[in-house]
Amino acid sequence: MSSNEPLDRYLRVRRRSLALCAPLEREDYTLQSMPDASPALWHLAHTTWFFETFVVAPSGVRYEKPPEVFRHLFNSYYNGVGDAYARDRRGLITRPTVPEVIAYREHIDDAVASLLTSPDADASLGALVLLGTHHEEQHQELLLTDLLHAWSFNPVAPAYTDEARSMEPARPQRWREVDEAIVVIGHRGDEGFCFDNEGPAHRALVPAHAMADRLVTNGEYAAFVADDGYRRPELWLSEGWATVQREQWQHPLYWRRAGSDWRRFGLDGEHALDVGAPVTQLSYFEADAYARWAGARLPTEFEWERHASAEWDAAGDAHCWEGAHGVPKPASEQDAQWCGAAWEWTSSSYAAYPGYRPVEGTLGEYNGKFMCNQYVLRGGSCATPRDHVRATYRNFFPTDARWQFAGLRLCRDLR
Amino acid sequence: MSSNEPLDRYLRVRRRSLALCAPLEREDYTLQSMPDASPALWHLAHTTWFFETFVVAPSGVRYEKPPEVFRHLFNSYYNGVGDAYARDRRGLITRPTVPEVIAYREHIDDAVASLLTSPDADASLGALVLLGTHHEEQHQELLLTDLLHAWSFNPVAPAYTDEARSMEPARPQRWREVDEAIVVIGHRGDEGFCFDNEGPAHRALVPAHAMADRLVTNGEYAAFVADDGYRRPELWLSEGWATVQREQWQHPLYWRRAGSDWRRFGLDGEHALDVGAPVTQLSYFEADAYARWAGARLPTEFEWERHASAEWDAAGDAHCWEGAHGVPKPASEQDAQWCGAAWEWTSSSYAAYPGYRPVEGTLGEYNGKFMCNQYVLRGGSCATPRDHVRATYRNFFPTDARWQFAGLRLCRDLR
Amino acid sequence: MSSNEPLDRYLRVRRRSLALCAPLEREDYTLQSMPDASPALWHLAHTTWFFETFVVAPSGVRYEKPPEVFRHLFNSYYNGVGDAYARDRRGLITRPTVPEVIAYREHIDDAVASLLTSPDADASLGALVLLGTHHEEQHQELLLTDLLHAWSFNPVAPAYTDEARSMEPARPQRWREVDEAIVVIGHRGDEGFCFDNEGPAHRALVPAHAMADRLVTNGEYAAFVADDGYRRPELWLSEGWATVQREQWQHPLYWRRAGSDWRRFGLDGEHALDVGAPVTQLSYFEADAYARWAGARLPTEFEWERHASAEWDAAGDAHCWEGAHGVPKPASEQDAQWCGAAWEWTSSSYAAYPGYRPVEGTLGEYNGKFMCNQYVLRGGSCATPRDHVRATYRNFFPTDARWQFAGLRLCRDLR
Amino acid sequence: MSSNEPLDRYLRVRRRSLALCAPLEREDYTLQSMPDASPALWHLAHTTWFFETFVVAPSGVRYEKPPEVFRHLFNSYYNGVGDAYARDRRGLITRPTVPEVIAYREHIDDAVASLLTSPDADASLGALVLLGTHHEEQHQELLLTDLLHAWSFNPVAPAYTDEARSMEPARPQRWREVDEAIVVIGHRGDEGFCFDNEGPAHRALVPAHAMADRLVTNGEYAAFVADDGYRRPELWLSEGWATVQREQWQHPLYWRRAGSDWRRFGLDGEHALDVGAPVTQLSYFEADAYARWAGARLPTEFEWERHASAEWDAAGDAHCWEGAHGVPKPASEQDAQWCGAAWEWTSSSYAAYPGYRPVEGTLGEYNGKFMCNQYVLRGGSCATPRDHVRATYRNFFPTDARWQFAGLRLCRDLR
Repeated sequence: MSSNEPLDRYLRVRRRSLALCAPLEREDYTLQSMPDASPALWHLAHTTWFFETFVVAPSGVRYEKPPEVFRHLFNSYYNGVGDAYARDRRGLITRPTVPEVIAYREHIDDAVASLLTSPDADASLGALVLLGTHHEEQHQELLLTDLLHAWSFNPVAPAYTDEARSMEPARPQRWREVDEAIVVIGHRGDEGFCFDNEGPAHRALVPAHAMADRLVTNGEYAAFVADDGYRRPELWLSEGWATVQREQWQHPLYWRRAGSDWRRFGLDGEHALDVGAPVTQLSYFEADAYARWAGARLPTEFEWERHASAEWDAAGDAHCWEGAHGVPKPASEQDAQWCGAAWEWTSSSYAAYPGYRPVEGTLGEYNGKFMCNQYVLRGGSCATPRDHVRATYRNFFPTDARWQFAGLRLCRDLR
Repeated sequence: MSSNEPLDRYLRVRRRSLALCAPLEREDYTLQSMPDASPALWHLAHTTWFFETFVVAPSGVRYEKPPEVFRHLFNSYYNGVGDAYARDRRGLITRPTVPEVIAYREHIDDAVASLLTSPDADASLGALVLLGTHHEEQHQELLLTDLLHAWSFNPVAPAYTDEARSMEPARPQRWREVDEAIVVIGHRGDEGFCFDNEGPAHRALVPAHAMADRLVTNGEYAAFVADDGYRRPELWLSEGWATVQREQWQHPLYWRRAGSDWRRFGLDGEHALDVGAPVTQLSYFEADAYARWAGARLPTEFEWERHASAEWDAAGDAHCWEGAHGVPKPASEQDAQWCGAAWEWTSSSYAAYPGYRPVEGTLGEYNGKFMCNQYVLRGGSCATPRDHVRATYRNFFPTDARWQFAGLRLCRDLR
Repeated sequence: MSSNEPLDRYLRVRRRSLALCAPLEREDYTLQSMPDASPALWHLAHTTWFFETFVVAPSGVRYEKPPEVFRHLFNSYYNGVGDAYARDRRGLITRPTVPEVIAYREHIDDAVASLLTSPDADASLGALVLLGTHHEEQHQELLLTDLLHAWSFNPVAPAYTDEARSMEPARPQRWREVDEAIVVIGHRGDEGFCFDNEGPAHRALVPAHAMADRLVTNGEYAAFVADDGYRRPELWLSEGWATVQREQWQHPLYWRRAGSDWRRFGLDGEHALDVGAPVTQLSYFEADAYARWAGARLPTEFEWERHASAEWDAAGDAHCWEGAHGVPKPASEQDAQWCGAAWEWTSSSYAAYPGYRPVEGTLGEYNGKFMCNQYVLRGGSCATPRDHVRATYRNFFPTDARWQFAGLRLCRDLR
Repeated sequence: MSSNEPLDRYLRVRRRSLALCAPLEREDYTLQSMPDASPALWHLAHTTWFFETFVVAPSGVRYEKPPEVFRHLFNSYYNGVGDAYARDRRGLITRPTVPEVIAYREHIDDAVASLLTSPDADASLGALVLLGTHHEEQHQELLLTDLLHAWSFNPVAPAYTDEARSMEPARPQRWREVDEAIVVIGHRGDEGFCFDNEGPAHRALVPAHAMADRLVTNGEYAAFVADDGYRRPELWLSEGWATVQREQWQHPLYWRRAGSDWRRFGLDGEHALDVGAPVTQLSYFEADAYARWAGARLPTEFEWERHASAEWDAAGDAHCWEGAHGVPKPASEQDAQWCGAAWEWTSSSYAAYPGYRPVEGTLGEYNGKFMCNQYVLRGGSCATPRDHVRATYRNFFPTDARWQFAGLRLCRDLR
């Protein structure tokens, strides 16, 4: 008799985390290249700590307890749970070792499985476990982007995958025009999982505009670079221009000059620039400057959601993530790239929807406390687990964050 | 024969800048305590440079030209005009001296007056000069807040004014409830001056809510401090909490402990805390944390404008700024404090209104390029020139800026 | 047929580097906790790069060449050899992996062995190889101290060795008095290896003084801490006091408070403070402050050498390093601790001896360019290979370096 | 009735401090361009605070007391006297104003005069006052170099003096050779004033060497720059090279490129490079690199003193500072430039002489606590008061300090 659906999903997600680590050498698990990025070992342990802390420990079930110090080492930022180990030192944690962390995972998996198969299992338990799996899927994406960031400093240029990239050119971009309308924004909460920041659903007035039907490509972005895009202050936000000068940005994070050509580093190693694929690893500042240079602007998250909601299912089914492919591809004729290629920067500052209430208790720290000085990204990238995203999903990063598979789609006013 | 209105206003504003400096000693004019704050001498020269660069020089009129180096020294951030002198070194400019800068002002005043009284004077000239006077009024407020910041490091605690503060307690706060409605936000542009960021006027959906009818007071804020407000991470945004710990904030910027009591420094010197007056010199983080502690939230700028637009004129007339009083007072029975006491942090990230277009040319750098990682403040403070503000006015600062007369008004959801 | 002495020593030293890594897990090899400290993997590769660059490659012998990028990755600071990989990112080098680095070592070992056993082998080859082995021994010590530093951030407190520490109290300290004399300082160069900075031997006038006959102990240093040693500015050099306040130093680097007691972390893990053992992990500032508190001073390196030269051999034979014991022990009755316990800070700034000439060529970068803002340490610690040190040996570190097994011996003027 | 010599000197020195400020505008008095440099107002007040704290207050004499806060504001670094106002904020002290500080000076002058003319005046009083005047003379030099540093950031390039510089070329440099000898180093203390760090006098072994008979000139240094001196790591100490790269040094601090020529800024304003004059405003790193490039080295302070002691009087009388001329001149035929042109970097780390004891009490903080990570400069510059220096005088600065009139003289080994 099959079908303990929460448990199936739980085990599938948990197994995928380990599967994602298959290409790693033992030395790679503790790589940390900046405070914002965490080592694979820490991602594996922290996602387990999450289940232990919010599901297993409160349940009273008996389980093989890890050393007391894990509580401290693998807490990320939950002040309600106690002091967290310094974020910028996660790469120093080589003990517990990889096998010890895997054993920790197994002990917690056993405990969660016994809870989910217990006759006492109720809806609130299922909801917590479901939240935990979505939390783990977020870390699966970060595990890849964080590893890629660390490897980008290694001139050896390791490759994570042999997934073939496409060197085809991009199809033409077309505009989709819509009139002003009041639309419902946010997750209705009636079916399927969502994070608290996706609600409450509410009406919003969305002005008339035209939206591009695919992402901006590497080739298009190369024209911006060639047109002195990184040297013209009038194209940049003031803070963006200060950042360009201070950090000496001259191109996207993983592009490398090779004579008069470009190469780019990615999960498939270092290769000639794939001009038809979406540009990625952009900061908000770069996305915004490109849009200004192109005579357009970034969409708001509401504009984006209005289009994506209508088209998501088909697009999602056809084109989103399947397996750890990790390499962005050019848009096909039918594909508007609402997900599966790159996250899309919007011009919307990350803020609460009207009537927003964080979850009660420590889990309330999950989203609300980050609603400041970050901008919303929509969609989902080639590194995002496919069953993790939806049209109402709100990702968010600071304006100078560059290490994600983040690009942009153009939008413009209609009058 | 009277009534060259643009010229009258021009001369009135220009004279007020000098009048504001009357309490300064020569040594005070070059004080600079941080990169964000500029010396009085620089404010006097930069506002003059603005008229020279955008009005006088392009007009072709003959005038007494300052040394070439002024162009560089007194440019603030207009990349289109050339390289600006390093902002954090403005305090090193002791030559030109104060008398030399005053002479520079006089030469430019002569030129502007001759342009405005010329038969060729047209509407676009008037508009530019008007913009310049509003620009200068912004610097008048900064001149005071920047001076106060510098003096706050001097244990001598100099007083700028002998304006009497009020030690009366605050009247009770009441809530004003409104239903959801579509309202027009922004300046219609048909009468009176506004900055480009106040338009275009546009319809917006404002949800039902309750708005406080006065600002939060020093006394109320002291209760937050006494309740360990600065030591409880759950009250703060994540970035706010990091800032509190890094900067060791324990109270508003100019409060000082005196045994178990509080004193505060202000333009009237150092005194016992005036508990009925609005709390000021708050960062966005502190305003947000206080609101959360109080079981409320910050208003959006649209919610704020909806109330203020209706009530502004009466309130403005009765209570706003007259002369450089510089000391916030408690709300009277009739006064909702929409302006004249303290700027009010809103939860709105500073962004373009739908359809926004910056002014063409270099003056387009005025506002648009700052629309990122800043939050909107509404109202107007005890240091704001009275004829400078209106219900559609949008001030903005980064979330950790503390040196302005900035406080908050509570708001809460209705359902 | 035995006795190719250079080769024997070469192989013995090379094997010891690997033997030192036996207690490491694969994850530990790439640990880097600060720019000054390097990962074990890097130490293993860099010492090999040294032989490749200065011995193998110039010889023209055929050998299995590593990837070209190794040249860049494993250069430390030899500008003459090309650009070195950023020192603070050595921990990001996880490829080549540990087995690949070990293979690299083997290829170079084969090449060196074939050179040393070739009929063409001459004295200059032997001298270069000998230099390389002493260079590698320096890195053997650093490998241990760098690992210990990284582990000190791990609350798991891993132990490198189960070497027993001694909890015996210290024997009394006695003074050895000597009169003013002209003595010969430095290595005569006639027998045995020395670094270029140990010569030329030269006459120096050493004043009358009294020298302690053992190192300062943990117990003695604890009395300094208890006497508010870290809170009294009059005991510190001005820069030392600024460092104490900025870094909030309150005790030696690896001491930890446990209620009213002290514990200390070391290569044997975390344990109760061994009060009779020499205090270690001191900066110059702390050593200097302790001496002042004790009514004494640090010796000059010449005063130290005068005593040590006379006594070294006996002491050295009896008490110096044998195996990777790594745990400092109390002085026995006969032992003056000239080596084998802790490096000793002297008051001598690291400078050239009169007539000093660096080696010609790139190897001239070895010592001379560091003769600035560092102070000389003499002796040798519990982590120093025994056959690596001698009475003329000059170690050196900046005044705030704390992660070495560095302590002090008292000295005082006689008049 | 003449000749109260201590009082005469006191009044002469005090008057000179004010005379040095004659070219300043009121705005200039509070200029501070870096933490290491202090404003003129602070120099005037601090030197007065020194007399108040160490002479007037302990004497019990009645005097017009300044506000209590002066104690805190004008303490430099004497921990024994209480907490000092933050050094990097001295430029924020605009109250007390210049006239108020001058009044403070007068009150203390009155008190000192009455003490020195009292029948109870004894030798220890005279010694303290004498120390205070030498302390004030140090600040006279700093007042000039600190002002110059601040002005160097002002593109207006103000001139302090109209003293004529000399555009004559330098005479040839000759070598003075000496044999090894034991010489007495340091001040004998039997006649005239000296600081505690100049003693005790002691015998030292000085090796044979050749010493240049004049300073290195701007013209010679320009050849070093032209020979890529700032781009060749092999010429620099390791820490020097890191500094060159981090700070992007390309020439001496106040040199400015003008096409293919050099100009330099100085107390006489900005002018074409005076190639025959000594190069100044060098760091230790630059002096050391130049010497290496020239195939020579810096002298030790003992080598320097050996030559200077013999020649000082004649040279000093003929060529040293007279009035605030402030502009270095080329060496004349008879002048070896032992003083009056530029301080000379030596290779000697600043350390205690054998048997050194700091003065008892708070004044013991004067010199001893700085004996670490600084290098000794000998001689005296064009900004040094003439009666302030002597052949045993030891000035000292960190290796990256560049804002003094500091240059170098070459030395080389003889064998």
